[in-house]
Amino acid sequence: MRFLAVITAVVVVVLVVVNLASHHAHATATTANFFKMPAPWGWRCEDGRCVKHAAAGGSDLVPLNQCKLTCGGAGVLWPLPASASVGRRVSLFLPQNAALRPTCPAQVCPLLQEAFVLFRDALQRYHPDYTSGEAPWAGPWDAATEAHALVVAVTVEGAQAHLTLDTDESYSLSVNTSADGAVTTATIVAPTFFGARHALETLAQLVDYHETRDALMVVQTAAVTDAPEFAYRGLLVDTSRNFVTVAALRRTVDAMAASKLNTLHWHITDSHSFPLALHSLPNMAYYGAYSARQVYTPAQVRDLVQYARVRGVRLLPELDAPAHVGNGWQWAEKEGLGRLAVCVNQEPWQELCVEPPCGQLNLANPAIYDIIGQIYEEMLDIFAPVDIFHYGGDEVNLNCWNSTQEINSWMTANGHGVDEEAYYRQWAVFQEKALQLMQKAAKGRKVEGVLWTSELTKPGRLNLSHNSSQYIIQIWSTQDDPVIGEMLAMGHRLIFSNHDAWYLDCGMGAWVGDGNNWCSPYKGWQTVYDNSPHAIATSLTGSPNTELILGGEAALWTEQADTNTVDAKVWPRAAALAERLWSNPSTSWQEAETRFIHHRQRLVQRGVQAERIQPQWCHQNEELCYL
Amino acid sequence: MRFLAVITAVVVVVLVVVNLASHHAHATATTANFFKMPAPWGWRCEDGRCVKHAAAGGSDLVPLNQCKLTCGGAGVLWPLPASASVGRRVSLFLPQNAALRPTCPAQVCPLLQEAFVLFRDALQRYHPDYTSGEAPWAGPWDAATEAHALVVAVTVEGAQAHLTLDTDESYSLSVNTSADGAVTTATIVAPTFFGARHALETLAQLVDYHETRDALMVVQTAAVTDAPEFAYRGLLVDTSRNFVTVAALRRTVDAMAASKLNTLHWHITDSHSFPLALHSLPNMAYYGAYSARQVYTPAQVRDLVQYARVRGVRLLPELDAPAHVGNGWQWAEKEGLGRLAVCVNQEPWQELCVEPPCGQLNLANPAIYDIIGQIYEEMLDIFAPVDIFHYGGDEVNLNCWNSTQEINSWMTANGHGVDEEAYYRQWAVFQEKALQLMQKAAKGRKVEGVLWTSELTKPGRLNLSHNSSQYIIQIWSTQDDPVIGEMLAMGHRLIFSNHDAWYLDCGMGAWVGDGNNWCSPYKGWQTVYDNSPHAIATSLTGSPNTELILGGEAALWTEQADTNTVDAKVWPRAAALAERLWSNPSTSWQEAETRFIHHRQRLVQRGVQAERIQPQWCHQNEELCYL
Repeated sequence: MRFLAVITAVVVVVLVVVNLASHHAHATATTANFFKMPAPWGWRCEDGRCVKHAAAGGSDLVPLNQCKLTCGGAGVLWPLPASASVGRRVSLFLPQNAALRPTCPAQVCPLLQEAFVLFRDALQRYHPDYTSGEAPWAGPWDAATEAHALVVAVTVEGAQAHLTLDTDESYSLSVNTSADGAVTTATIVAPTFFGARHALETLAQLVDYHETRDALMVVQTAAVTDAPEFAYRGLLVDTSRNFVTVAALRRTVDAMAASKLNTLHWHITDSHSFPLALHSLPNMAYYGAYSARQVYTPAQVRDLVQYARVRGVRLLPELDAPAHVGNGWQWAEKEGLGRLAVCVNQEPWQELCVEPPCGQLNLANPAIYDIIGQIYEEMLDIFAPVDIFHYGGDEVNLNCWNSTQEINSWMTANGHGVDEEAYYRQWAVFQEKALQLMQKAAKGRKVEGVLWTSELTKPGRLNLSHNSSQYIIQIWSTQDDPVIGEMLAMGHRLIFSNHDAWYLDCGMGAWVGDGNNWCSPYKGWQTVYDNSPHAIATSLTGSPNTELILGGEAALWTEQADTNTVDAKVWPRAAALAERLWSNPSTSWQEAETRFIHHRQRLVQRGVQAERIQPQWCHQNEELCYL
Repeated sequence: MRFLAVITAVVVVVLVVVNLASHHAHATATTANFFKMPAPWGWRCEDGRCVKHAAAGGSDLVPLNQCKLTCGGAGVLWPLPASASVGRRVSLFLPQNAALRPTCPAQVCPLLQEAFVLFRDALQRYHPDYTSGEAPWAGPWDAATEAHALVVAVTVEGAQAHLTLDTDESYSLSVNTSADGAVTTATIVAPTFFGARHALETLAQLVDYHETRDALMVVQTAAVTDAPEFAYRGLLVDTSRNFVTVAALRRTVDAMAASKLNTLHWHITDSHSFPLALHSLPNMAYYGAYSARQVYTPAQVRDLVQYARVRGVRLLPELDAPAHVGNGWQWAEKEGLGRLAVCVNQEPWQELCVEPPCGQLNLANPAIYDIIGQIYEEMLDIFAPVDIFHYGGDEVNLNCWNSTQEINSWMTANGHGVDEEAYYRQWAVFQEKALQLMQKAAKGRKVEGVLWTSELTKPGRLNLSHNSSQYIIQIWSTQDDPVIGEMLAMGHRLIFSNHDAWYLDCGMGAWVGDGNNWCSPYKGWQTVYDNSPHAIATSLTGSPNTELILGGEAALWTEQADTNTVDAKVWPRAAALAERLWSNPSTSWQEAETRFIHHRQRLVQRGVQAERIQPQWCHQNEELCYL
């Protein structure tokens, strides 16, 4: 009986396989009827790649999308699952016939329902004429297409509703089509909501638009078991050098979700501007935002946190200190609190900071701790629940402090001295107080802290070597930096953001002086993809240090990016990072190129203005754009 | 009596000068009332630059926009006029009170009316909440602001309605405000419509938004006389490597208009795709477009020609041949016309062309001339009136021809031989026939022809040295290429597009292989700005060759750009080119930086997603982002 069912399924399958040949009428091309003409080309999966042929070249030719969905064993899945097997046949269906069958703890069912709405929207977006949430499905369709159901049966086992570093993001997904061909069932099982939503992303990548039928197609069979290699898969966006609208941040989250990145590290403030409008300290943004329109209100932040959560993304807020502060901190003096920041906007900047404008917190003014404590409290509130917080802590300029009379005198008066190590010690004191203020603000909940590598994180300072679990260290130097090995030897947990591969702002023209910017050249997606934290650790220490390396993060510093260009700066390159961190392939970018180029197209369909990587000809002629 | 009037004017002027101080209430900042609070900062023009101060720092402080409009003698005009003097005072007004008073020959009055509609739209766009053609002006305003009229009196002297290389684009513009302060009159006189519309762009740059008053402001006095240094000020957009939508091309034209560039060189087709849907040869696009949706219909082309004309921009169409053809030419064989193109999509591409996919016209097939003739005819029709046409003519690969049996045999059978020079001679024969086909299609009208520098344009081939007026030569090598000097010595008219400064696609990741693309690094706006054709000519020949150098052109080859990113690739860098070609300043980018950064903001207001050049802090703190 079982055997017979399989045979029947195969027969039905053959009938519903869509080919080009059946549509070849004897139409003549005119400029008016291009849309109605059968395509002059078709594709066939040959040796794992889609090869273009004249449409007359065989009745087994299919449209490009269909070939890509089903060719090569894993179709065009991105990031590549731990294990995936994708069938060669597809069923046509209409998006309204996709239905969720959920099994979930009450705490996460609403999240799952929301995630399914997003899944359906992702399907609609495959239509080339999708706009403003709708697609003009017109048909006509055959009865089988109109009736075909896509049932998405999702079982979420656990009730965890917030992502942490310990969250199990794994899932299994199997796709099967009934013997009569009428129903395709996608069965998803995941220990958490976060795994389940990843599975929905994978399922969406097993669907695409069928141009000549004006319908969706889903692979009839697939089996995927999947889990990320790294728990921390991040993207940094800086909103201080230039403002980025909430709408642009949402698009960024959309693309992260589509690529299974899970952490948006929000470098909100810096010396340039302070766009975070705090109820408790409105003067920070009033004095610090570029304009009254260029602020994030508490309500907007809360909304974004929730927006990201449904998409499997946690926000990691950063308040960079004690350097990288300046504009926004000037209000206090006239209110009798003294100077909170020094060197603000001072010249010549080269003597006081790494780039204009300068500014550092005033070590000599105890009021800074009251203010930081208040900021932490409101940040933990509006970003709730915060499981990781970034203290910044990079690029302190000792000359700024030492050349400020108030600080120099205070150092001397308190017997600290004014030599280099004296300032580093006081910086460490500052950091210790910041940690205590955070703990106080967290009211007993655990909040992991992250610090950039700096002079402070060097052995001996901050007593880091005695307490390696206190901070996660984010590496931003180069892949051959011995500091990486030293940190690992000290037992530190690391996040990799080595700028020679994962800084997305490199390679433009300079913005002070001429020539090109400091970390040129531009890091192509190939460089992003091939940057392996485990390989770097192995080359420096002889071991991949799997336990200590939490993951990695690409960074968009926005001296030369804003709302208008954040999409193209980040995407699709951050998706190359995503596969490195999710799949951690032993292979190089060459093996990923065909899928990557297709994934870029999906990001565009999601509404993200991703950079173009190659001529479209390369997408239609797989593997022919080689060197 | 005259003296008294001046005195009165000054008094009135002082009264309407808007300052920040009058708006300083005792409000307290909360996140809810940022918009209603007086700005905490104001600016003062000091030694020709706008300096930021705390608002309490003086009753003469003004908003940033107002300072920029009136500081430094030429405000933030871009490109810098030949002569400009801008007053320090502004009048507030509302956009509906801007009115045109035209004096024009009947042939160009409709164009002028349209240009004025665009001018009014440009004013509306200064409002930060402009969207979809409207701005939510809300006030409240004082009576003087509500009543203030901006009269734009335009006199166009000549009836020329189409741009040519001889068009006089000069204009004069004077702005004056009545003694009672009630009316500001802008008086524009221009020999042609094209000069007049440039004047409207300049006038639009003497207007900006006043944030605290929710009104526009116009400088009360200004005197500008202006004309371009170069007649040809171009931008190339390639729509073959990747498709660019008509909407994106329109935005490109909008930004060209705002920057006084006058030629959109449309590299429509190449070996990758043939997106031009021709009524006479629909198969070209049917077989050659990436998809049925990625085509330009004749109607769309005609619309774009007109769209550009009103904006002072001519379209220069290119049909690149005999290389850079391929996809789109495959239809003829089955219709009995033989192969029109050879080497199409062949491998290994390195042996047959400069980048995948390969393809060249089949020299041995006389049918190519029928086809080219038909294409020329329809192109001249849909792009009418065409005053310049680009034949392409670059990067022929002799090995492609020689390794094609059909061509090799034909060369031998006709006694041409198969050595290098034999092929170059036949390429010259092809070009000569192309020229004749164009002359035939032009039906007696003069159509200037442009050729890229190539092996063909070398001395001796094509007999160019005997007929230097037959073609304009477009240089795409480097600024130290001796060919430039040779061409000038032969008396050729030149357009500069040396890739070491004016190729806008350079600096990204490679798209075949890894590393960075061929013409890396990225050309920053400083490099674009400082690239002076006259200086290059002088260094190579001892003379600027002012008569022979028609101008220059930036080029966006679209291997790595499409609809999503064309804005940021081209802008604002093409505006740096625009000032080089319009103003041809003897100074360098440093002197232009403040105006350039502001002009980039205007491009964004025009709806163009231009690249960000610097942190916004640099815009608010002029000249402090130095090296």
